[in-house]
Amino acid sequence: MKRGIDLRLLHEAIRIDCKRKTVTVKDIPIGRVFDQPYEKLIIATGARAVVPAVPGSYLSGIFCMKEFQDGLNIKGFLEQEEPGRVAIIGGGYIGIEACETFRELGLEVILVEAGAQIMAGMDHDMAELVLEELRKRSVEVILNRKMIGFAGTDRVKGVILEDGSLLDVDCVLLALGVEPNSGIAEEAGLVLGEKKAIAADRFVRTSDPDIFAAGDCSTVYHRVLERDVYIPLALGSNRQGRMCGENIAAELTRKPLGRFPGIAGTAVTKFFDCEIARTGIGRIEVERYDLSGMDSVRIRAGNLPGYYPGAGDLWVKLYFEKDSKIVTGGQIVGNSGSALRINTIVSAISGRMNLEELYNLDTAYAPPFSPVWDPVTVAARAGLKK
Amino acid sequence: MKRGIDLRLLHEAIRIDCKRKTVTVKDIPIGRVFDQPYEKLIIATGARAVVPAVPGSYLSGIFCMKEFQDGLNIKGFLEQEEPGRVAIIGGGYIGIEACETFRELGLEVILVEAGAQIMAGMDHDMAELVLEELRKRSVEVILNRKMIGFAGTDRVKGVILEDGSLLDVDCVLLALGVEPNSGIAEEAGLVLGEKKAIAADRFVRTSDPDIFAAGDCSTVYHRVLERDVYIPLALGSNRQGRMCGENIAAELTRKPLGRFPGIAGTAVTKFFDCEIARTGIGRIEVERYDLSGMDSVRIRAGNLPGYYPGAGDLWVKLYFEKDSKIVTGGQIVGNSGSALRINTIVSAISGRMNLEELYNLDTAYAPPFSPVWDPVTVAARAGLKK
Repeated sequence: MKRGIDLRLLHEAIRIDCKRKTVTVKDIPIGRVFDQPYEKLIIATGARAVVPAVPGSYLSGIFCMKEFQDGLNIKGFLEQEEPGRVAIIGGGYIGIEACETFRELGLEVILVEAGAQIMAGMDHDMAELVLEELRKRSVEVILNRKMIGFAGTDRVKGVILEDGSLLDVDCVLLALGVEPNSGIAEEAGLVLGEKKAIAADRFVRTSDPDIFAAGDCSTVYHRVLERDVYIPLALGSNRQGRMCGENIAAELTRKPLGRFPGIAGTAVTKFFDCEIARTGIGRIEVERYDLSGMDSVRIRAGNLPGYYPGAGDLWVKLYFEKDSKIVTGGQIVGNSGSALRINTIVSAISGRMNLEELYNLDTAYAPPFSPVWDPVTVAARAGLKK
Repeated sequence: MKRGIDLRLLHEAIRIDCKRKTVTVKDIPIGRVFDQPYEKLIIATGARAVVPAVPGSYLSGIFCMKEFQDGLNIKGFLEQEEPGRVAIIGGGYIGIEACETFRELGLEVILVEAGAQIMAGMDHDMAELVLEELRKRSVEVILNRKMIGFAGTDRVKGVILEDGSLLDVDCVLLALGVEPNSGIAEEAGLVLGEKKAIAADRFVRTSDPDIFAAGDCSTVYHRVLERDVYIPLALGSNRQGRMCGENIAAELTRKPLGRFPGIAGTAVTKFFDCEIARTGIGRIEVERYDLSGMDSVRIRAGNLPGYYPGAGDLWVKLYFEKDSKIVTGGQIVGNSGSALRINTIVSAISGRMNLEELYNLDTAYAPPFSPVWDPVTVAARAGLKK
């Protein structure tokens, strides 16, 4: 069999036959369909933006933010149609980031979130801090109300909420998250996991030993929860992809496979000067997986010494095991220079550090960067005193 | 004995009598000298800026940068005398930071460094990157030439170098580091350590069990080098001070003493947009302590994804044990958002992580903060490939 790179753009994989080890492929420009045999196969089909099946979702002026083309579409619409008022449906990372962009462009922004808080991955008390920032920047936030449709004929004119109320807007961004492109895997009989993502094991293999999966189409091992989850984020996807290549190469040369180290659920974003970060276990994981024996502590510190330009508040919340004091999670909301501090907590979790070891870190201090005591170490000390 | 806080400002401690357990104190305003008995004593006398004994060092227009008053003095001089050309003697942290300030104020700046590189705590190849930045900002840097005196009558008019050359300047900043205020301890017979700093043990006690020492006057345990060193930096000093109080309280209540966790030699500074950080072992420690079995790797990455505003270069250098691959040090030079990444390396060192564990960290990614692969993880991977 020929080895080498045979790149086929504009070809759609239609079906996988695991027994015959072929992929049925369609050459889109000429319409030809053929079977492509494989020895090893990687499924890296990614994810797609969730578009709810509600009346009016086909109207023009309604956008997603997933593909590069989505960005171009929104940009073109803003330039040509000059909308004045936009609704963002969904208060997660994309929703918050879009709030900043639309406010920056001078639009009126309404954020609609069906749940009781924005930033569902953050603890309620931390999400409240972000909510305050949104309101300070004149974003109208509607919580606890679900969008059930859109008004308008050709172009969207409004958002209909479940209580029957109508929000007049002339542009809508759907920011409801993504779902995995796992249909082809499901049809091939591969096992699916959380949220119908393709189940990938620690060696990033699917349930078929000759088929690997990587990225936003597949589950990913969570090293803190010690289970497979669907958290489609860039670094984990990159790591899985790299490991696919390495492990297929290892199999073909009869070498031992590498073990995917797992993700920690680290995520970071910002809204203007407000930086937001999380990793590991938080309230949502404690509740979803019924984790007992976890404790948490929250502190407010400065991102910089008080006298330094740009000084502001920074909140750190740490999760840890009540008995061992081993760090299991962290969340940060604060002024510029806050978010990357999450990496100290990421390291502490992966290094199985307890609060005392975290407190004892010789972290970096200089006035342009940090108070003498890094806020993460301040939080660790507060946890020790509990 | 009365317990409580008895704050005596404007009192100078003149002498310690360890046998009688008294401190001879002078009430400065009224000149009265008296003996103050103690049960436990803390020496926290700090450090003073090094002023070299060279001709002309008494001239006006020559400053240090250590006390708050120094800052006021320089500010007053700049406003009243409007100097046009300043020499900074010493290319360490203070020297580099002063370069930024003086350039920002529009002065011509000459930096004189007796050694072969600026930033003596950094590896030569990393210091070169900073040197480039200084030169880009039109700082004239003179290396390998020692200052031996100053020209002028009342006011400084020039800096005399060892080769006899004269630099015409009308202001000088001495940035030659600090030396510990350990005279009172030495006279009392306490053991001194590196650079004549008061030797403090892991419980921050001096050689006299009833006398503790903390801060820039004392040595500090280096957890990576596993030896006592003189590195007078803020966090270690703060930590020692806190531990002094805790351990004296423990002794007086017959509880076990806390062990000082040690510092890692973490330091961070910046010059305009160029951020500089280091921790643990680098070339200087390898040479000074003749450490064998260390390897290093250096990579260039981006501080941000290339398309994001503010994207620039970031260099990471990692030190690790050749056999175990355990991380022992790191240095970073790069654009905004670079320096605090040193805390990931600090954590890796303290958690005894090897390069693979560092590479496997689920670090934070979002375009305003980082490339997908954090530069520190990129460096770890490069080290693994060596």
